[in-house]
Amino acid sequence: MDYRFARRMAEVRASEIRELLKLTQNPRVISFAGGLPAPEFFPVEEMKAIAVEVLERHGREALQYSTTEGHPPLRQAIADRLNGTADTHLSGQEVIITTGSQQGLDLCAKLFLDEGDAVLCESPTYIGAISAFRVFRPRWVEVPTDDEGMIADALEERLAHTGRVKLVYVVPDFQNPSGRTWSLERRRGLLAAAARHGVPVVEDSPYRELRFEGESVPSLKALDPDGLVISLGTFSKIFCPGLRLGWLAAARPVLEKCVILKQGADLHTATLAQMEAAAYMGRIDLDAAIGRIRGAYRSRRDAMVAALAEHMPPGCRFTRPSGGLFLWGELPPRVNARDLLEKCLARDVAFVPGGAFFPNGGHGNTLRLNFSNMPEERIAEGVRRLAMAIREIMDGEGAAAEREAQPAFAGSGSAFDREEIPCR
Amino acid sequence: MDYRFARRMAEVRASEIRELLKLTQNPRVISFAGGLPAPEFFPVEEMKAIAVEVLERHGREALQYSTTEGHPPLRQAIADRLNGTADTHLSGQEVIITTGSQQGLDLCAKLFLDEGDAVLCESPTYIGAISAFRVFRPRWVEVPTDDEGMIADALEERLAHTGRVKLVYVVPDFQNPSGRTWSLERRRGLLAAAARHGVPVVEDSPYRELRFEGESVPSLKALDPDGLVISLGTFSKIFCPGLRLGWLAAARPVLEKCVILKQGADLHTATLAQMEAAAYMGRIDLDAAIGRIRGAYRSRRDAMVAALAEHMPPGCRFTRPSGGLFLWGELPPRVNARDLLEKCLARDVAFVPGGAFFPNGGHGNTLRLNFSNMPEERIAEGVRRLAMAIREIMDGEGAAAEREAQPAFAGSGSAFDREEIPCR
Repeated sequence: MDYRFARRMAEVRASEIRELLKLTQNPRVISFAGGLPAPEFFPVEEMKAIAVEVLERHGREALQYSTTEGHPPLRQAIADRLNGTADTHLSGQEVIITTGSQQGLDLCAKLFLDEGDAVLCESPTYIGAISAFRVFRPRWVEVPTDDEGMIADALEERLAHTGRVKLVYVVPDFQNPSGRTWSLERRRGLLAAAARHGVPVVEDSPYRELRFEGESVPSLKALDPDGLVISLGTFSKIFCPGLRLGWLAAARPVLEKCVILKQGADLHTATLAQMEAAAYMGRIDLDAAIGRIRGAYRSRRDAMVAALAEHMPPGCRFTRPSGGLFLWGELPPRVNARDLLEKCLARDVAFVPGGAFFPNGGHGNTLRLNFSNMPEERIAEGVRRLAMAIREIMDGEGAAAEREAQPAFAGSGSAFDREEIPCR
Repeated sequence: MDYRFARRMAEVRASEIRELLKLTQNPRVISFAGGLPAPEFFPVEEMKAIAVEVLERHGREALQYSTTEGHPPLRQAIADRLNGTADTHLSGQEVIITTGSQQGLDLCAKLFLDEGDAVLCESPTYIGAISAFRVFRPRWVEVPTDDEGMIADALEERLAHTGRVKLVYVVPDFQNPSGRTWSLERRRGLLAAAARHGVPVVEDSPYRELRFEGESVPSLKALDPDGLVISLGTFSKIFCPGLRLGWLAAARPVLEKCVILKQGADLHTATLAQMEAAAYMGRIDLDAAIGRIRGAYRSRRDAMVAALAEHMPPGCRFTRPSGGLFLWGELPPRVNARDLLEKCLARDVAFVPGGAFFPNGGHGNTLRLNFSNMPEERIAEGVRRLAMAIREIMDGEGAAAEREAQPAFAGSGSAFDREEIPCR
């Protein structure tokens, strides 16, 4: 059978993250790939009680079809939480439940993107957004981005001179993959520019509550008087990802269309899981639970930063994010991260080559390291092996093993929300 | 804010079923709308035990991200079940888990449809497929359909003379909305014609196991030596819909692409729900559970058929399906089903006007009646009110209420899998 797929399938290829996630299923591998939350913080015991409680209380209703918008008490609980943590003023009716925030991306793409429309994004940007959007064949315009977010002049220039800009897509808090957080000034600037050009902004914010230090910055949704911002969130990083529960908050005209599109996509998100999440939010001290996750991830970030400082050879630079799950590295230009990955896999270490996060390619010497899913001692060991593999490539095969670790160098310039790893 | 949506949104409108489902939430309404399974057969008690058991056994893994293809034991259990009930020879690796079978439709559309491509479908066809596919702006070619399926000559003619036919979409067992089941001969003919023209066939089969009488016919997937058939299934009608669990079985090249597309759409289907479904299939006598559902629906179909025979005025025709959830009606040409719906809602009776199931419009005098979600006495009462509203329209407002019920007439011709309601 010679299948005649749609033209879009030319762009739809297997992703690197996906193949890598398979590798990480082997417990021997020290994985800095994927973006898995630490499972030791999943509330397994509470979920047993909650599952029984929800089925006792809602019984058949919990197993029946439900509305596309989602379970009203959960929508309200999310609005309340965002109003407390993201400075928004949302009602429950301005929030719909999605099947993970990944579905929010699919809905935004369906709603706005005709083939050839332009999407402005950070450089680098989230690989899952690339996967969701590419089905609708947009042009990706990467806006030069520094430690405070997209550079204002560059953004304005792209908005003014790019044809058919339909969306700006950003991850403003502890971005995946870079770990960067936008400054308040850049947030205001983005919204002003987007308003001038009449372009909606997708705010994808899975990591916002995972801040290790410093003051939080108001969400884009909180700063948006014009209904420009479509805000995506998820329970995956603050509760658990296995229920596939996310949300989308937007102005009424956008929300109504998203509901119709969602109905075509999967009718609605699982009723039972929504009721369980609502019960979880009602009975658990969520601040305390997230506080525990935050503390552990902070320690893991510290362990990774320390190991990088100890082991990395000169010419490698890494970010020190103030929250989230990821740290970003730039290697010397001659080190190709895909070659490096092969060497690392042979040593049972995995990461994601950074090139996958640039929709227009390039940046072969970059990489993303996840620090949330491994204990400190494995992080230290994994970074040691990673550094050894980098040295091998830098020095020529085989030579590195006999050498002493060299003082590492990393970082440059100042950052609002990202610090350099101290050299030693 | 003046949102510039994608061109496709011109076709994406709120669906009638959706608005009606909202109405049915009022327990006063006798609803023949929607396609809700009978909740009294949902295994609430078993699910309590299963939820605890799965969390005991799989713990953190049940709440973590998992692979896009789905939980391997569930994939295997589905393949085994289909091999027993649908005459297939599938391995677990030929099955992926989807977020309801609705997502399978979204994936098929993404995989095959460029704007303007043609989809051949039964006439009428499933409204959820219209919702999923229209996002990709196909041309719908309705193939004339009788009680045995698409009419062979008409199908061949459409395949031969329609440009860019990319998919044939059919619901071969107890079709939604018509209740029809394809004969074996028509199934073979469809596959032979599709193979000649190199067109894949989407077999959407949510109701196959809900046969009330007669012999089952092999599934299209079982009759397909060429990898033509993409088979969609769901737990919604044989277990419960609230977990949003479906599946897609197809040849390897199709399956691989669907996995990549699913990753962009929602990463994967909920881990916990998949593990629960696998545990359910392992510990429950599924044949016995489905047998109980089947028995109840048979009684409800009988109640609806009897009430229609008793109350309907001359000139109305209804199918008598041998399984599934739906019964289809044709009213005299001058009776518009949307007008009828308004009258019925005033009497707390709901159904779906049939026009919504014809992607190219028309057929305003048809309607779909669901019989699975109401007990027999409410079915009888609802049909009585429905008939009174039809009489009102036929006779002029107000006159009907004073009249005696007239002998009803329904049905014509013979059918493979569908019988007429006897007139009396």
